[in-house]
Amino acid sequence: MDILVNAAISVDGKLSNADREQVAISGSSDFDRVDQIRAERDAIMVGVGTVIADDPHLDLDDPALQQQRKQRGEQPNPIRVVADSDGRTPLDARVLDDVAETYILTAETINPKRKRQLEKAGATVVVAGDNKVNLPAAIDELEDHGIESMLIEGGGELLYSVFAHGLVDKLSVYIGSMIIGGRDAPTLVDGEGFDEDFPKLSLETVTQIDDGVLLEYTLEW
Amino acid sequence: MDILVNAAISVDGKLSNADREQVAISGSSDFDRVDQIRAERDAIMVGVGTVIADDPHLDLDDPALQQQRKQRGEQPNPIRVVADSDGRTPLDARVLDDVAETYILTAETINPKRKRQLEKAGATVVVAGDNKVNLPAAIDELEDHGIESMLIEGGGELLYSVFAHGLVDKLSVYIGSMIIGGRDAPTLVDGEGFDEDFPKLSLETVTQIDDGVLLEYTLEW
Repeated sequence: MDILVNAAISVDGKLSNADREQVAISGSSDFDRVDQIRAERDAIMVGVGTVIADDPHLDLDDPALQQQRKQRGEQPNPIRVVADSDGRTPLDARVLDDVAETYILTAETINPKRKRQLEKAGATVVVAGDNKVNLPAAIDELEDHGIESMLIEGGGELLYSVFAHGLVDKLSVYIGSMIIGGRDAPTLVDGEGFDEDFPKLSLETVTQIDDGVLLEYTLEW
Repeated sequence: MDILVNAAISVDGKLSNADREQVAISGSSDFDRVDQIRAERDAIMVGVGTVIADDPHLDLDDPALQQQRKQRGEQPNPIRVVADSDGRTPLDARVLDDVAETYILTAETINPKRKRQLEKAGATVVVAGDNKVNLPAAIDELEDHGIESMLIEGGGELLYSVFAHGLVDKLSVYIGSMIIGGRDAPTLVDGEGFDEDFPKLSLETVTQIDDGVLLEYTLEW
């Protein structure tokens, strides 16, 4: 599957402040750019931490982009995917509303009752992995459902997993002109981190947008 | 005092890996640039965490830059400054050798015996602040010693303090084309972090160097 990671961070690499409150890092031109790249993808994925912290909708803002998708014979909004081993997505989360399909990627240890609740709330629950979602297997299953391209928007724990599994093809990062700081603030890539075999990137484009800068990389696996 | 912060980070904002092992983030062209900006400053400051983790020398690599300083009537290397409230700088640290003067900025609670040891090892010990170094007061004292410009190179705890005190005039960040990852890895700006009043930066220049990008900002206080 073709996987693009896109996120906005402060100059010091933070996705939000230490209290995980959302921070306005990017401006309107970058929002439009993100809406556009969302529209070009079959699916948009986030981790459950992001769902709990921000309750994102992950739909398209611009009706014209929805219209273009419909003209291509697609659903108006991309499929939403949540990496959520234990099924912690709140049943009233905005990603579970009916503007788009939603897949929740879980592990075998998910409580069966919780699984049924999520399904009743409208999600398709994918089970892959013993006690933590096996991302390569889950993504294979998404491909079986026809998903060929995916945008991953964070958070840092999910991004560590997808980089550690070598699943990422491209990375685009908007660096807002601000400092957030905080040794406990979530960063673009958290998790255990890499010791030595750091994912190597190739810098393709550098573009000033709003008052920040967009860096676009391809991955060298 | 005119204060420039310069550091090299991975795309995800990390200064090193979670074990605080040094990582080669920048290349030879950026090393040369850093040597140049070191040569233009009266002093270079780091936090004691950086001294303990990396044992930096903080001298100039290029003899021609040392020669230029001598021709301007300056010492061949800039003065070295360590922010070190408790006097934890190892007595055999490279910053205590005799290639340049060294100031250690400490607090009133420093053990008097430790203070004497550091002085015997060649350092000038500045005491400012009750149980943690009071950076604005300590920097005033450096100015009394004729230091008018300083480069601060990290780590993230010191950088949080200098941003939190509004002491920084310019920030330059080299972003290496790699991911380090790790929720516990040190980032450009750690400390408690900012809740709302995030330091605002103005992006001045964007320059591709080696296989990464240098972002230069001025601070808007």
